Parts: sequence; C-alpha cells; structure tokens
Amino acid sequence: MLTTRFTQAFGLQHPIALAPMDPASGGRLAAAVSNAGALGLVGGGYGCHATLQRELALAGDAPVGCGFITWSMARDPSLLERALEQRPRCLMLSFADPAPFAARVHAAGVPLLCQVQTLDHVQRALDVGAAVVVAQGTEAGGHGFDRQTTMTFVPEVADHLAAHSPQTLLLAAGGIADGRGLAAALMLGADGVLMGTRFWATQEALIHPAAKASVLPARGAHTLRTSVYDIVRGRDWPAPYTGRLMRNGFIDRWHGHEQALQGLREAELRAVEAACEAGDADYGNVTVGQAIGLIGDIPTAAEVVARTVRQAHGLLARRPGL
Amino acid sequence: MLTTRFTQAFGLQHPIALAPMDPASGGRLAAAVSNAGALGLVGGGYGCHATLQRELALAGDAPVGCGFITWSMARDPSLLERALEQRPRCLMLSFADPAPFAARVHAAGVPLLCQVQTLDHVQRALDVGAAVVVAQGTEAGGHGFDRQTTMTFVPEVADHLAAHSPQTLLLAAGGIADGRGLAAALMLGADGVLMGTRFWATQEALIHPAAKASVLPARGAHTLRTSVYDIVRGRDWPAPYTGRLMRNGFIDRWHGHEQALQGLREAELRAVEAACEAGDADYGNVTVGQAIGLIGDIPTAAEVVARTVRQAHGLLARRPGL
Repeated sequence: MLTTRFTQAFGLQHPIALAPMDPASGGRLAAAVSNAGALGLVGGGYGCHATLQRELALAGDAPVGCGFITWSMARDPSLLERALEQRPRCLMLSFADPAPFAARVHAAGVPLLCQVQTLDHVQRALDVGAAVVVAQGTEAGGHGFDRQTTMTFVPEVADHLAAHSPQTLLLAAGGIADGRGLAAALMLGADGVLMGTRFWATQEALIHPAAKASVLPARGAHTLRTSVYDIVRGRDWPAPYTGRLMRNGFIDRWHGHEQALQGLREAELRAVEAACEAGDADYGNVTVGQAIGLIGDIPTAAEVVARTVRQAHGLLARRPGL
Repeated sequence: MLTTRFTQAFGLQHPIALAPMDPASGGRLAAAVSNAGALGLVGGGYGCHATLQRELALAGDAPVGCGFITWSMARDPSLLERALEQRPRCLMLSFADPAPFAARVHAAGVPLLCQVQTLDHVQRALDVGAAVVVAQGTEAGGHGFDRQTTMTFVPEVADHLAAHSPQTLLLAAGGIADGRGLAAALMLGADGVLMGTRFWATQEALIHPAAKASVLPARGAHTLRTSVYDIVRGRDWPAPYTGRLMRNGFIDRWHGHEQALQGLREAELRAVEAACEAGDADYGNVTVGQAIGLIGDIPTAAEVVARTVRQAHGLLARRPGL
C-alpha cells in the first residue's frame, strides 16, 4: 500500500490507474483493477454505444471510470451522456481539446482527468478544471506524440503545476510497467501512474491470447510510432498523433508507403480485421509501448497491481543511495 | 552524499558522471565535477591531439576520465594512447564497437565505460569487459538513437545485467538534470547517472555564454533529432545515429532538405562556424537534450552536483508514498 494525494483523493489503496485502452480495457479488466485497490477505467475509445453499454455493465458494482478519444467522441456527445449516467468514478479525456465537454463532466460531479502531451495541453487542462493531468511520454503504447519522454515531461509538468495549480494531481504515463517505474514516477513528482501496456498483457484484457503471447519475447526496441493502422481503419487522427505499436509484418510492409496503402485500404482492412480476430499478431495491430521489454508473463490484473506496489514499496523502503 | 556501487567502485562522493561532451566538457569542467565529488570526463570527441592535450592538462591534478567518439577516434588510435598516458580515472567509449580498443584500456589498468543504445550494444560491452555500461535514452542531447527512452531502456538493461553480469555497473543517461532524475534513475535500477545537458549549461562549459543563455527559456519539446549539422561539418556518422539539438533557424531551414544542404555545404560550414564563434544560437548548433525544460540558470558545476544530490537525498529520505 502506497499513499499519495491521488490515492487520498480517489479513495484508492494504490496510486495506479488503468489506461482506458480501446479495445483492451473492457469492463472486466477495469473492474479487476478497481477491485484490486487501484483505479480501473473502461476504454470508451472512438465511441460505440453498444460496446460502451456492454462494458460498463460488465464492470458491475466496481467503481470504474471511463475514458474517451475526445475528437472521436465529439461526433456523438451522447456517448459522454451515457457514460456519465453510469456515475463513473472519473471521466478521462484524451487527444483533443477537452473544453467542449468539461462543464458537462463537472455538472455531473465526476472528476475530470485530462491526458496531455505538451505544456500547452497542460494549461488547457487547468483552464477547464481538470482534477488530474496525465502526462504521457512518447514511449507509451497507442496514440500520442513523438515528442517528449516520460523522464523529462513529467518533471516539466510537475514544475508547471507547482507554479500555476498546485492542487491539480499528476499521473505519469508511458513506459511504466513495474514497481521500478512507479517508484521512479513518484520521484519525478507524479502522484501516481497510468499503466496501459502492462494491463494489456493480463488475463482480463480484451485481446486475443495469441497477440498477448506475441509480446513476451519482444524488447522495448521492437515498437515504433506509425499511422498505417489508422489509415487502414479510416481513423482521421489529427496531426501529429501517431500510434505506437509492436513492429510486425504489416508495419514492415506499409510503414513509409502510406500513399500506396490508401489505395488498397478496403482489402487491407478486411485482412487486418480477420488477423485481429484470429490472433495473427504479424498482420493485426499489437498496440503496446516500449514497456513490452519489461513484460514476461500474462498474469491477472490483480497480480499486476499487487506486484507493482510490492516492488515499489520495497524500493522506496530500501532507499537506494542512503 | 549518496552511496552506490558506482561511488564505491570509483571512490566518489556522489553517483554522478559528466558526459564527455565535445566541445563543452573541457578540462576545467571535468575537473570541477571531479573536485565536487563526482566523476568528471574530458570530451575527447572526434579526436584532436592538440585539444586533447590542452584539456587534459587544464584538468590539472583532478582525477578525471576521458571519453571518445569511438568510430572517429578509430581513425587515429594514437589519441587513445595519448589519453591513457595521462592515467585517466576511466576511459569511456561511445558510438561504435568498443572491441578493437578494450584490450588496450584494460592493459593500462583503466576502468572501461561503454555507452550503449541497444541490448546488443550491452552484450557487446559485457563481452569486452566493460566495468560500467551507460544506458542512453533518446531524450539525451547530442548523438544517439531515436529508439528507446530512459524510462524503459534503463530497467531493461538492468534486467539484462542482473541475468548475465551482475557485477557490471549501470549508469542512466538521457533526460536527467536534477535530483528528481537522479532519484528516479536509482529506482529504475541504475547505480548512478551520466548528465550532459545540465553540465553544458554551467559556468565552466566550453560553450559561448549566449548559447548557454538561449536554452533557459526553452522547453523539452524544443529539441529534435537531426543530421543537418553532421552534414555541414562532414561528420560521417554511421546510421542510425542522429544528434539531438535545440531547434533553431538553421534546423528549421535544412531539416528535411538534407540533399540540398549537401550541395551548399562549404558556404554553410563557414556560416555555422562563425555563428558558433559569435554565440549565435539561431544558426550555430545548440547540442542539448530534452532536459533543457528543467534548466533555469547557469550555475557552477559544483553547484549542479550539490543541488542534484541534495534534492535526490531529500526525495529518497522522504520516501513519497510510504
């Protein structure tokens, strides 16, 4: 058990949040994380009423939050209404200006988390009253910026918050998969961590078991940022967002040949969807970050929470150097 | 004062090493760092007998080490002989296979430090008997890989060393500029840190004061990896090394237009050299990493060492979370 301003504000045992990954972070995974004393978030993703309804229901009575890809959810804000009706533990907005939705979240009495990639994003999150800023480094899996790393961005954001909004909480995201990363994040000035890739590789994640297994032998160097899967799926991500994924045959074939891929989009989309369905990690997307080099098994989410906290606790108690 | 395996092995008070930056890390800076209880290294850089002789002499009696850009020094290995004759505290090899030179360093009884960017580099460093592996993340200033970040690479290297060579020491490099970064690095499994950018911005660094001042308002997001200055200077860096620098007018003009720059190389070289001489940071290279967002003054090197250790000590003693 580690106590920080984040655990106190949210009534948690551990300063760990689950990244609301689409599709990995379903209701079962979010509930497992919350039931383990951390903060589970259901991945609302691009936004689909049926999926959102189903996964929030699957979380049962567990106090889970919900997160959206903001620019996509913005095309149908009733998704946000649906999520808020469920009285989520928190609402997280990532990847676009949160301003159009912040007032609605505040009115529902739900704490607002904003994921940020730049100091301008941080200031915007403060302007709209975010309770928590999630500072994401480029090593993170999935979408983000190819810009700053967790090691430099987190303390830079911490300095900004200290100067302008000391009551706002800070989570570190990107490259954190064990107790070493959690302890390091606390040293950098974070109140806790948001972990994606480590929870992606758990029993409860809504990912094909073969895809999960494919990351076990991989190293952190085996990921890269690319837009090839966004092109295939017709996701209009605003620049400069790209997705970090594990390199595979599909990426080796199309990364750098994006224009040609545009022309073959429909056929490739069918092949990619079939590959994801079949657990073919060489053709389907494996959306993970550099932390895969620190992951060697597929435990339960509760086990991830327990061992991360245990390791961080041990490091902090040992006080290396003193 | 922080005690780690690194301080014990090298007889230091603090687990901090100065990156052997060319040209910033001259003899005065290296001596100041060593005299402050850390490990100063003179930047042997690409290799120039006159400069090396002068800067090693300027270090006086201070126990400093020396570092080389290995592929460049390899064109005239008598540079290594000259450095070893001075009985340096250590010899650091970066940016190429250290194998051709390791035996000579060992024969001189000088501890060998190898900077690494991949796990293959780590294994190579172990094979040639490195005493210390310096794991460099992509946020670092100057040359390196556009691959893994410090947050994921350091623990991955720590795991490799634990499994294959637990007696080998590990320094973290890239994005570390204060006590938060030092404390975080210790949590990630490092025995200490190698800092470049923070020492680049000190009184003693061999950099024009106007260039030093130019980084003070900058943020970590204001750097990028590029090869434009290598092209201008005719430095044949092997792929995939690039240099991280602060963005400026020169980079905005030429980054992405490398072929055109090749044709105008000679005229641009004169302009760049004049700019560096004059402290024109918009045209001359400002070779710093993402840590510039954490730097707000130009203190002495001794002050940097003292405040970094003081802050790390405070964080470790406070044990956030416990």
